[in-house]
Amino acid sequence: MKIKVIQNVLQTNDAVAEQNRQIASAKEILMVNIMSAPGSGKTTLLVKTLVALGPSRCAVLVGDLQTSRDAERLCTSGAQVIQINTGRGCHLSASEVAKGLEEIKLEGLSYLFIENVGNMVCPASFDLGEHRRVSLLSMPEGDDKVAKYWTLFQTADAILLSKKDLAGILDFDIERVKNDLARINTRAPFIEMSSKSGEGFEVWLSWLKEQHGQMKNS
Amino acid sequence: MKIKVIQNVLQTNDAVAEQNRQIASAKEILMVNIMSAPGSGKTTLLVKTLVALGPSRCAVLVGDLQTSRDAERLCTSGAQVIQINTGRGCHLSASEVAKGLEEIKLEGLSYLFIENVGNMVCPASFDLGEHRRVSLLSMPEGDDKVAKYWTLFQTADAILLSKKDLAGILDFDIERVKNDLARINTRAPFIEMSSKSGEGFEVWLSWLKEQHGQMKNS
Repeated sequence: MKIKVIQNVLQTNDAVAEQNRQIASAKEILMVNIMSAPGSGKTTLLVKTLVALGPSRCAVLVGDLQTSRDAERLCTSGAQVIQINTGRGCHLSASEVAKGLEEIKLEGLSYLFIENVGNMVCPASFDLGEHRRVSLLSMPEGDDKVAKYWTLFQTADAILLSKKDLAGILDFDIERVKNDLARINTRAPFIEMSSKSGEGFEVWLSWLKEQHGQMKNS
Repeated sequence: MKIKVIQNVLQTNDAVAEQNRQIASAKEILMVNIMSAPGSGKTTLLVKTLVALGPSRCAVLVGDLQTSRDAERLCTSGAQVIQINTGRGCHLSASEVAKGLEEIKLEGLSYLFIENVGNMVCPASFDLGEHRRVSLLSMPEGDDKVAKYWTLFQTADAILLSKKDLAGILDFDIERVKNDLARINTRAPFIEMSSKSGEGFEVWLSWLKEQHGQMKNS
């Protein structure tokens, strides 16, 4: 009985997610779902990314339990930004994204980023209609997180190691992370980045542009 | 219909939690539920805490989606440690803790720590039978997290600011955190800590001992 209810929720979510994907695909907008623990640098990376891609070509749906602080930071880029407050909700759902899509002027967009609620567990289980999933691992979180929070990294299309500027201070073994990734996801590129030093940013931008091209041609 | 099922789950959880609490109280064991995002330093703090309190007086139930890495680290202290793998589960439940309690030799214990799954959202909604809740905020996670993940901090009996040794490198405003806490939780002490430098550790230990004393006298 309990399982049945959960399946229904997931089935409904997946149907709405598919509609979201079709809306974005029809307009040749690449939808990217960005997931990580709280404070891994999603917002900082996004602000830079919006500016670099051209804010008029981008929009962001940003999920948080409460506050519009991330939306305020993202707005400084000039891109369209919609804040979704989930209250006690631990992840964004496809229907929340669907409502957000109604608020966005889609004409002229090439990229729609979804900044998910900061959480390494729940968001990974919910399709929002994205074309690509990106998972961040922040260096201060430790080199054991891929093995421990494997669901987040297994389904990712790109994995970003953020805050690499702290490498000299922290006891973090990048090879350990790569070894763990080799067991669960060999498909996704692993991009070592720092929003402070700029390391990896051009690789990330190239990856995004490539994915947009692939989506248009598919 | 959906809400009814969720309520039933929470009611069942709360009943089991109450049993867990009674088991611990009867033996004068202080049960402490430690919650935070992934990689905030829960395990490192616990290893030091177990050694300082005396490992024979302590046990730990540690929750992770997968791996026994935290349990292995905690075992080095000499305390009893039980690893609970939740698979895709985003938090520990009271029934998982109840099963864990069956595996632990309770005689002679004064402290039972529960290291919850690394997650700033879901664990806060589930009573496990603890006497005290402790929430960690790691400095690299940013000074906006209390406002954004308020449920974790609102119900805490103590709030620890971890990795404070990184204060000189990070752009983190402690006053901002204190102002946010002043709105949602004025009860819990706010302890600024670093497992590297040792800052705050004695304050934390004193707080634990005081709580144990209060629990015995209640």
